[in-house]
This record gives sequence, C-alpha cells and structure tokens, in this order.
Amino acid sequence: MSPGEGARPGRGRGRRAPGDAEAAILAAARRRFGDHGFGGATIRAIAADAGVDPALVLHYFRSKADLFAAAMQVPIPVDTARQLVEQASDGDIGQLGEALLRTVLAVWEDPDGRAAWLGMLRSAVADERAAAMLREFLVDVLLRPAAEALGGADAERRLALAASQIVGLGVIRHVVELEPLASAPPDDLVAAVAPTLQRYLTGPLGPDRR
Amino acid sequence: MSPGEGARPGRGRGRRAPGDAEAAILAAARRRFGDHGFGGATIRAIAADAGVDPALVLHYFRSKADLFAAAMQVPIPVDTARQLVEQASDGDIGQLGEALLRTVLAVWEDPDGRAAWLGMLRSAVADERAAAMLREFLVDVLLRPAAEALGGADAERRLALAASQIVGLGVIRHVVELEPLASAPPDDLVAAVAPTLQRYLTGPLGPDRR
Repeated sequence: MSPGEGARPGRGRGRRAPGDAEAAILAAARRRFGDHGFGGATIRAIAADAGVDPALVLHYFRSKADLFAAAMQVPIPVDTARQLVEQASDGDIGQLGEALLRTVLAVWEDPDGRAAWLGMLRSAVADERAAAMLREFLVDVLLRPAAEALGGADAERRLALAASQIVGLGVIRHVVELEPLASAPPDDLVAAVAPTLQRYLTGPLGPDRR
Repeated sequence: MSPGEGARPGRGRGRRAPGDAEAAILAAARRRFGDHGFGGATIRAIAADAGVDPALVLHYFRSKADLFAAAMQVPIPVDTARQLVEQASDGDIGQLGEALLRTVLAVWEDPDGRAAWLGMLRSAVADERAAAMLREFLVDVLLRPAAEALGGADAERRLALAASQIVGLGVIRHVVELEPLASAPPDDLVAAVAPTLQRYLTGPLGPDRR
C-alpha cells in the first residue's frame, strides 16, 4: 500500500483513528520540512508534532524520503529512479537515457502523476523555500545516490544536465503545451530526446570541460 | 530606445504626458492580451482603450509583437532571435546551437533579463491563460518565422525541442539552483548543451521519426 492510497480512506471524518494519525503525520511533516528543510526535519520531531510514536511514522512511511515525497506530493518514483541507475551501472548503461525518459513519460501520462509533477513545479517556481526543499531532496535522495551508482568525477553534473532536459520537456509539453511536442507520441520523444540524455549521462560533454 | 527604457522617465507623476500615454497603452495592452490572447487583441482596440491614436501606439512600440513583449515583460530579444536564425540560414548553420545558447545565457546573466524570464515562467506555470498567451506569442512571433528561416518539414519540432532544453536549463540553473549547473560558467554550459541544441536544430532526430 502506498502512502498516498493509505491516506484516503482515513479522511472520512472520525471513521478510523489510523487515517487521522496518517493525516496528522503528513500535516506535521509539511510544517517541519517547510521550517527546517529536508535535512533539518527529523522523524522524531515530526512524530512529536503529530502526537504519535516515531515507529508509527515509519510504519506508514518507510523512510524520511518517502514521507517527504508523500507530504510534498513529489511525483518521483524514488525507488524506480535508483533502481534504473543501479541496473544500468550493472551493464545496460547504453540504454540508461531511454529507460530514464520512458519512466518519466509514464509518470506524465498518468493524470495523477502529471498533476503532482505540475504541483511540484508550481511550488518551486512560486516560492524560493519550496525550491530549496526540492533541491535538497533531489540531491540527498535521488541525485547523490544515483551519482554514486553512475560513478565518475562529473556524475552530479551529468545528472543535473539530464534533469534540465527532462524538466524542460515537461514544461514545454505540459505547461506551455507547445506543438508538436505537446501531442507527440512517447516514441517520437524517445527518438529525439533519449540520445540527449544518454550523452549527458555517459557521453562526451564537449571540448571546453576541464 | 527600447520600450522598457522609454517608459521609465515618464513615470514621474504629471511630469510629462507622453509617459502617461505610454503607461496607459501598456495597461490597456495587458488587459486586451489577457482577454483576447495575442492574436485576438488589435492595436486599434488597445489604442481606443488607452484613449490614444493607433499611430501613437506604433510610435512607442514598433509592432504588436514588441508591444506584447513590453506589456508582458517577455524577456526575449525578439529581433536577436530572428536575426540569429536568419544569419545561420545564410551559412553559419553549424554554429546556430551555440549562438542561440550564448544569446539566452546573456539574457540570464543580466539581472533584469533573469527577473523578467522568471516572471514569465511563473505566470505560465501558475495560470493557464498566461501559458496560452505565451505559447501563441512564441509560435506567431518567434517560432514560425524562425522555422521558415530554418526550413525543412520538421522545423517547428526542432525549435520546440531546442526550447525544451533551454527552458529546462533555466529552471535547473535559476529556479531549482541545482549545482554544479547553478554556478557553472557559461563556457561550461555551452560545451555541454550547445551540441544538444545543434542536433535538435540541424542533426538527425533519431530512428523512430516518421
């Protein structure tokens, strides 16, 4: 059961305590992450704010990263992204660009995934603190582990470049809705954009790089 | 004299009528573009709303595109972008990706340019109508003429792909402020990203393309 699915049935007023506890944890998490950032907020403090035991927080949300993703509605399949890079570093690295892009496109094709993604972008663009939280989360949870799996001195730069192309594709396709990209079939996008991601992740990055 | 520069001295209260007229035109333009989009708003109607002659509108803002850019603070050096593509199509097409990226990076390095760019992004992300206006403006004023200059059946797709990489780089560098891209020197970004733009504009776009 995902955290998001678990929270819904409990929202019926007074119907069951576990749902209330989950909602209280999510509300406390939003406040704590907002005030202290991803790194500064602790499971212990969030549990205390919500009036529950820390073990219950971990029962509902397996880790601080998963709690953050649920509280902030971060539409990143954290495990999937990590697994992608880990699998790729085990041999299939020539397909990493395409695998990453297909994962992202699948999130956007799902209306909930797309709404969550747009919500995250909207918060980051509107509010510097939300942008800082998102950055910290991306780095700690996604990019640094992925960079370790990818290896190489410039792995973080490579992942940030890949992120720039992915974010921009999302903005042009789903915010500006610029044709022909807005209604392009995923295979068309993969043909055009996966080679970019592959070069950013594993290819030569240009002659000026020191 | 650019419209932006021209508007400032006139803002001193009651000091001179031309500044007031200019401010009235800009206010009327924002309302008209907001209600009718870029295509539906006319210079004549904007002039009538502002209580001035249409010729005065064109005196201050040479064209509807320039008026839109001034009213919406669109940080796109319209003439520069058009000239870039036109120059490139005259022979220097192998450098178009780098020339385009250096032009954009120069806009972002300027604090006013960056603020205007972020304001435009914020509006488009927060509000569907602003996103639609921006799209219509981009297509009518920038992308279609650029596509004609670039030529080829898929020129609009190529330009939209280039736009996706440029927008994403702006979001990662100046909104999320993700390192090492946030503080990368322009030459580093050019080395990594210009080949992407060049491929989108003039290179092969992948085997799946029909």
